Amino acid sequence: MAGIPTFATAPGFLGIARADRAAAFTVAGVPFDIGTTNRAGTREGPAAIRRASRMLVDGAHPGNWVDPLALDIADIGDFTIALGDIEGTLRLVEAQAEGLAHLLCLGGEHGVTLPLLRSLARRVGKLGLVHFDAHVDTWPDSFGLVYGHGSFLYHAINEGLVDPARTIQIGIRSPVQREVWDWTVGQGVTILSALDVHAMGPEAVAARVHQVVGAGAAYLSFDIDALDPAFAPGTGTPEIGGLASWQAQAILRRLGGIGFAGMDVVEVSPAYDSAEITALAAATVVWEYLALVNS
Amino acid sequence: MAGIPTFATAPGFLGIARADRAAAFTVAGVPFDIGTTNRAGTREGPAAIRRASRMLVDGAHPGNWVDPLALDIADIGDFTIALGDIEGTLRLVEAQAEGLAHLLCLGGEHGVTLPLLRSLARRVGKLGLVHFDAHVDTWPDSFGLVYGHGSFLYHAINEGLVDPARTIQIGIRSPVQREVWDWTVGQGVTILSALDVHAMGPEAVAARVHQVVGAGAAYLSFDIDALDPAFAPGTGTPEIGGLASWQAQAILRRLGGIGFAGMDVVEVSPAYDSAEITALAAATVVWEYLALVNS
Amino acid sequence: MAGIPTFATAPGFLGIARADRAAAFTVAGVPFDIGTTNRAGTREGPAAIRRASRMLVDGAHPGNWVDPLALDIADIGDFTIALGDIEGTLRLVEAQAEGLAHLLCLGGEHGVTLPLLRSLARRVGKLGLVHFDAHVDTWPDSFGLVYGHGSFLYHAINEGLVDPARTIQIGIRSPVQREVWDWTVGQGVTILSALDVHAMGPEAVAARVHQVVGAGAAYLSFDIDALDPAFAPGTGTPEIGGLASWQAQAILRRLGGIGFAGMDVVEVSPAYDSAEITALAAATVVWEYLALVNS
Amino acid sequence: MAGIPTFATAPGFLGIARADRAAAFTVAGVPFDIGTTNRAGTREGPAAIRRASRMLVDGAHPGNWVDPLALDIADIGDFTIALGDIEGTLRLVEAQAEGLAHLLCLGGEHGVTLPLLRSLARRVGKLGLVHFDAHVDTWPDSFGLVYGHGSFLYHAINEGLVDPARTIQIGIRSPVQREVWDWTVGQGVTILSALDVHAMGPEAVAARVHQVVGAGAAYLSFDIDALDPAFAPGTGTPEIGGLASWQAQAILRRLGGIGFAGMDVVEVSPAYDSAEITALAAATVVWEYLALVNS
Amino acid sequence: MAGIPTFATAPGFLGIARADRAAAFTVAGVPFDIGTTNRAGTREGPAAIRRASRMLVDGAHPGNWVDPLALDIADIGDFTIALGDIEGTLRLVEAQAEGLAHLLCLGGEHGVTLPLLRSLARRVGKLGLVHFDAHVDTWPDSFGLVYGHGSFLYHAINEGLVDPARTIQIGIRSPVQREVWDWTVGQGVTILSALDVHAMGPEAVAARVHQVVGAGAAYLSFDIDALDPAFAPGTGTPEIGGLASWQAQAILRRLGGIGFAGMDVVEVSPAYDSAEITALAAATVVWEYLALVNS
Amino acid sequence: MAGIPTFATAPGFLGIARADRAAAFTVAGVPFDIGTTNRAGTREGPAAIRRASRMLVDGAHPGNWVDPLALDIADIGDFTIALGDIEGTLRLVEAQAEGLAHLLCLGGEHGVTLPLLRSLARRVGKLGLVHFDAHVDTWPDSFGLVYGHGSFLYHAINEGLVDPARTIQIGIRSPVQREVWDWTVGQGVTILSALDVHAMGPEAVAARVHQVVGAGAAYLSFDIDALDPAFAPGTGTPEIGGLASWQAQAILRRLGGIGFAGMDVVEVSPAYDSAEITALAAATVVWEYLALVNS
Repeated sequence: MAGIPTFATAPGFLGIARADRAAAFTVAGVPFDIGTTNRAGTREGPAAIRRASRMLVDGAHPGNWVDPLALDIADIGDFTIALGDIEGTLRLVEAQAEGLAHLLCLGGEHGVTLPLLRSLARRVGKLGLVHFDAHVDTWPDSFGLVYGHGSFLYHAINEGLVDPARTIQIGIRSPVQREVWDWTVGQGVTILSALDVHAMGPEAVAARVHQVVGAGAAYLSFDIDALDPAFAPGTGTPEIGGLASWQAQAILRRLGGIGFAGMDVVEVSPAYDSAEITALAAATVVWEYLALVNS
Repeated sequence: MAGIPTFATAPGFLGIARADRAAAFTVAGVPFDIGTTNRAGTREGPAAIRRASRMLVDGAHPGNWVDPLALDIADIGDFTIALGDIEGTLRLVEAQAEGLAHLLCLGGEHGVTLPLLRSLARRVGKLGLVHFDAHVDTWPDSFGLVYGHGSFLYHAINEGLVDPARTIQIGIRSPVQREVWDWTVGQGVTILSALDVHAMGPEAVAARVHQVVGAGAAYLSFDIDALDPAFAPGTGTPEIGGLASWQAQAILRRLGGIGFAGMDVVEVSPAYDSAEITALAAATVVWEYLALVNS
Repeated sequence: MAGIPTFATAPGFLGIARADRAAAFTVAGVPFDIGTTNRAGTREGPAAIRRASRMLVDGAHPGNWVDPLALDIADIGDFTIALGDIEGTLRLVEAQAEGLAHLLCLGGEHGVTLPLLRSLARRVGKLGLVHFDAHVDTWPDSFGLVYGHGSFLYHAINEGLVDPARTIQIGIRSPVQREVWDWTVGQGVTILSALDVHAMGPEAVAARVHQVVGAGAAYLSFDIDALDPAFAPGTGTPEIGGLASWQAQAILRRLGGIGFAGMDVVEVSPAYDSAEITALAAATVVWEYLALVNS
Repeated sequence: MAGIPTFATAPGFLGIARADRAAAFTVAGVPFDIGTTNRAGTREGPAAIRRASRMLVDGAHPGNWVDPLALDIADIGDFTIALGDIEGTLRLVEAQAEGLAHLLCLGGEHGVTLPLLRSLARRVGKLGLVHFDAHVDTWPDSFGLVYGHGSFLYHAINEGLVDPARTIQIGIRSPVQREVWDWTVGQGVTILSALDVHAMGPEAVAARVHQVVGAGAAYLSFDIDALDPAFAPGTGTPEIGGLASWQAQAILRRLGGIGFAGMDVVEVSPAYDSAEITALAAATVVWEYLALVNS
Repeated sequence: MAGIPTFATAPGFLGIARADRAAAFTVAGVPFDIGTTNRAGTREGPAAIRRASRMLVDGAHPGNWVDPLALDIADIGDFTIALGDIEGTLRLVEAQAEGLAHLLCLGGEHGVTLPLLRSLARRVGKLGLVHFDAHVDTWPDSFGLVYGHGSFLYHAINEGLVDPARTIQIGIRSPVQREVWDWTVGQGVTILSALDVHAMGPEAVAARVHQVVGAGAAYLSFDIDALDPAFAPGTGTPEIGGLASWQAQAILRRLGGIGFAGMDVVEVSPAYDSAEITALAAATVVWEYLALVNS
Repeated sequence: MAGIPTFATAPGFLGIARADRAAAFTVAGVPFDIGTTNRAGTREGPAAIRRASRMLVDGAHPGNWVDPLALDIADIGDFTIALGDIEGTLRLVEAQAEGLAHLLCLGGEHGVTLPLLRSLARRVGKLGLVHFDAHVDTWPDSFGLVYGHGSFLYHAINEGLVDPARTIQIGIRSPVQREVWDWTVGQGVTILSALDVHAMGPEAVAARVHQVVGAGAAYLSFDIDALDPAFAPGTGTPEIGGLASWQAQAILRRLGGIGFAGMDVVEVSPAYDSAEITALAAATVVWEYLALVNS
């Protein structure tokens, strides 16, 4: 497990000999966290996820025998951000995401999903969205903060980046103003609360995802706080009652055929982690995604 | 070291003067822990639960749209205790609980439930009891300690404070002497072990609670070690195999209609917590209770 | 640093002199960990499990009313190992296990199961195996290491110590080379992945164990990483998606009648533990085993 | 998540109504941290310092027998900040500091010192400055960030808030660009590196402070990273080789007679703290200051 | 949960039977902590100190070449205490200490020193006292608690167990009421504050100890909070500005010739420790003592 | 602080575009730890030191204005090791060190210094040695282990790699057999104990180093346990009473002119670290070395 960590030991570059071709899959970190409203520290998320990903390299996925090491994947390091400047950072992230085929981003806070969707939607059109989260993230603002970490989906819907009718949220359970909930549902978003997932089981959840998202380009945004704090303590706005990691895996493994064109895993805050289990969960979500879209 | 922290106990203010009327709901801490038999530290529980509770204030309960912030609730700080003196503390807690309408107490160890029941039963009569716990807490004594943290229910039954026929225990799983178990069942208490809960599911558990507790005044005593150590590591006598936090939530949300007249959440020991997840679980139990009794 | 801690290894006493007869059950630690490939530190496992086991002594098992304290069981401390020498240690462990009736070993890494099986199989013949683990442990080698912690079962099958047709693995979920998986299955081993356990439930899993292992002498090897990292963070090669501790308990309690002749619980790495919950899980597995084989 | 914690921000009371007069000393928190360049989390600093301060209330200062509890001091809770907006927050903090006599602020990051100085200098004129820190904090910007946590003194000098000839820095030791160092010294600031402090001893350091600051109004800004990480691990930009906490105390106790008109202690990041020792160090610095200015 | 850990308190053996004679030195733990006024948990201290002591066994003391392993020393496990009962415990500890030659006790809170002094003074007469501590421990009571952890010396002087004129305190620095300080000094106790130690150096401190304690029987009571929290975070009432561990060692090594007849090291609270450094410091104090009294 | 970590953001390579020239300075990790005798985990040291080193990149050394970023330095990642095989690893490390000009190695355990010295001495001849450590590391074996982490200097002297007359040890304080100490001194090694350093001060220590090592090629081996556990808790064999980090810095900065031809910093065990302070100390030692040999 030693050495300089890139994601799952993917080839990486550090300014010495940048590859002059695009890999089939690109991993990038977004060490940005100033739009958070509770506990801080997701800027350290990308590095922690990379370290944890090294536990996953010895062998193939036992579900479909895809081996992430055999994929054409490059870890390009972290995107440049604008310190202390949310909107400046959103512009920088969007610009850096351009032209990168099939991008997998490691957050950072959930606000960074917005520029990723802007870049991707420009290329492939309005997206379906599979959104694991404890929070609906459709607040028009957070205590006055317009582009904070609880608003990416509000803007993404309003900007026409995602199709709410093809959007499903899984794991929702935080306190929420009724008008925010009603707006979300009113837009056509499908919400499966965490208790819904516990009651339905992963097979029914996956069926519902297929039904909602259907054909066409889609995006996976996985906020690690969709998992219960027992499984992912290292995050800023934990909510009890969440998903077990096996439930997330069991759902993801049944999403074959959905036209995923990109993904992110966000809100890993290592300072609150325990024995790297949150970072490992995030890394495994990426690993499941790679196995899924290559099977 | 208890109480609401201002700097060096300087006078502080929160925008309002002291109410000279009782609020509809009163929150009080009981930073008492010397009757514990294993790991120490629940004296720090009330402060930790308060801190964690601040994660819950932005919005309404997504099940019934009750907003705890809109309720008439006052946090009166911590009850005075008698340092190093169990029975003196029980008397002090009982005295301070007098006249406080609908009290929600933050422990502290489980021994403090006894004086709370004494005070409440004096006012409303013999109580039904919904008791989440890993332990039956009907030991006549703990290694010679009569009013320790494993005996509150033994005394409460013997003193006629709770009606054993209207008492249900949920999550029980610790080692226990057969005579203690038999005494408890013999008194008429209904015991659902943790494995029972895993096997029955929360819906059936809730139905059983309604069946046992029925109409009439009731009390909720939630020992955080009812949850599995994965969900609540910060406690003194953890037992594996416990409830997931979602199971507790799913049960609580189905207890509408029970005549709850008070509650406590006890045995949070922050020094053993990880990323505040235990304190958050305890705070969320209070929040679920507030939403439940106001829906 | 192994052994039963007295101050500076001063002679200590516990109220009894050294037994000059064998107890019915013998507990021994194996503080050995140099064959691990990821995070280190299982050498501290035996001491941590012993400490945590002290939480289990006050009462009987609530399933079958066996009281471990009433059993004829001796803790003989830790086996001597050869520092820095894997094969030397395997020989030492095998030698020390000789003649000890019904041995329960506390690891230490999983490589130590091999000499324990060698010793036991010599006495009772080819063994059935109930193997809880996240990993198949049938790698011919780990990055060149032949007797590392991922190979005990490869050798045990090849050496004829266990009968693969009477071997069942529970909780498997790590990345794995397809040829390793196919070899394992090809030998006749039954593999239940963690997702299989989640889907089947503990009752069906236990039935399958009875079906596979049948009558005849058997061994229980419990790698703590069979549990999810939420339940057992203190281990070296965690994999998400694992078993809840209640699932392991629910399976174990249904294994009555299997001819267990020995057991081990391995891969507890206390430096990564949180509030001793991993050590407690390991101790409870031993406690469940003692209750099981005495009921 | 800031403020004085009552349960779910319920109204609380502490025995007194809000004073409608100013206290002689006012404590306020500034839970702001988005201008940091390394590890995050000082937003949690004020609450942690308050908690730790409760260890200091039982008795008088053993140096000069001042008892902080007997002082006329009020904790007014945390200042409102603008989420995600550095310059907006600086304006808000400055506005809220107006009219508060002798303010003691609990950070938060060091950037908040600038508006505190703006407010204070407007009232009392150009200030002398006693500045404990590992960093000179005279960077014109930090990676493009103009009002980040490494630039307060650059702006304070340029805005004429502090008199560099009456400014002394104690504990400096981080990497620094030579031009930044030369600018600082060129302005007339006196720099005592951490190694200078170790070599000179606290008595000589205090003499130098008196010599530099002289008569006239002065301000104490104590960045907790002036202390060595052994004494203050809970901070964002630790540097080894720092001061022992006793050295800071021994210096502070010899600063009687300096005309301190305000102070802050900043950069406490509780997520990186160990056993609250950093928060306790910060609280004790405030306590030493209160004893100092009242002796 | 006290005692020497074997699995589930199974009988264990260490190669020797119980000695039917007294060893020259006896080690005992006192897992008692309910008289504490701040953070809890010293009940776990004896076990933690024993574990840490195992790091010290490989070789002789590099100052005087005494090898603790070659000494005639027995660890008799933990004293029985009365759960939840301070005065009952003091009586039990006193009784168990009877007849044990040269007792070295591992705390546990500082209140347990009183019965140890009662037992020892009865045998050898009024004692000189070398008392390392952050607190004077001469409070007549702590918030009403008469035999709490801050009062042992008040009672020991009043009961005539120690001679205040032959008593020296080293490391004192907590807040303290002036009347408590004045009473202590008025009794004739010599107080060296932590700042005194930093200013004088260990050589002068040791000279002062010899001067004060002189000839005659003496006792060493080492409260681990005499050390700075950087060196001993794992304690309940930390105070910054304390001793470095090397200072304590340098003082202790110069105390040869003092007639020590017993010692204790108290107030180790493992739940707040970091990497066992506090427990190791406590174990090393015992080791230094053994080397000292045997050189 | 984001991005893929190489040491101090030095150019690194990962097999994609390895530079075909040697840099002036080469950093390599040695993630090897199976020769340790106490707490495990230094295999994670190199990665942790690299991460911490990123805190040091923004500016020049404030003592001599060398900027590590401007140096010609390459981080080549970790050396390959032989899992579970001490002697095989020593051979591999020696082979990989060949031909690398001015190597700075990040351990890993102290046993890896031996092959580094073998390689270097072959090129530049017998070396002077500046050896910071709590342990003499001249044990002929550790509990039977010949090439364990306490024996590198025994072998290095016997193999003629270092000149004992030009060898100085700084910080020694562990228990040690007198014959081991006498052998070391008898070979001509100069030992400065930790207490010697505390008594002499860093200036006198540095003078002694110059006197002992003199002219000619020399090596710096810095075992992080030379520092006190307060400053470096993250190590396997901590000993109290050690150096403060400022003392190490103050000594190192006075070693200009010594002919250092290579260095290592070893025994960082991140699982026992607190807030990365041990890793930061190790990284800063490398940074001080780079500034030293380039000034």
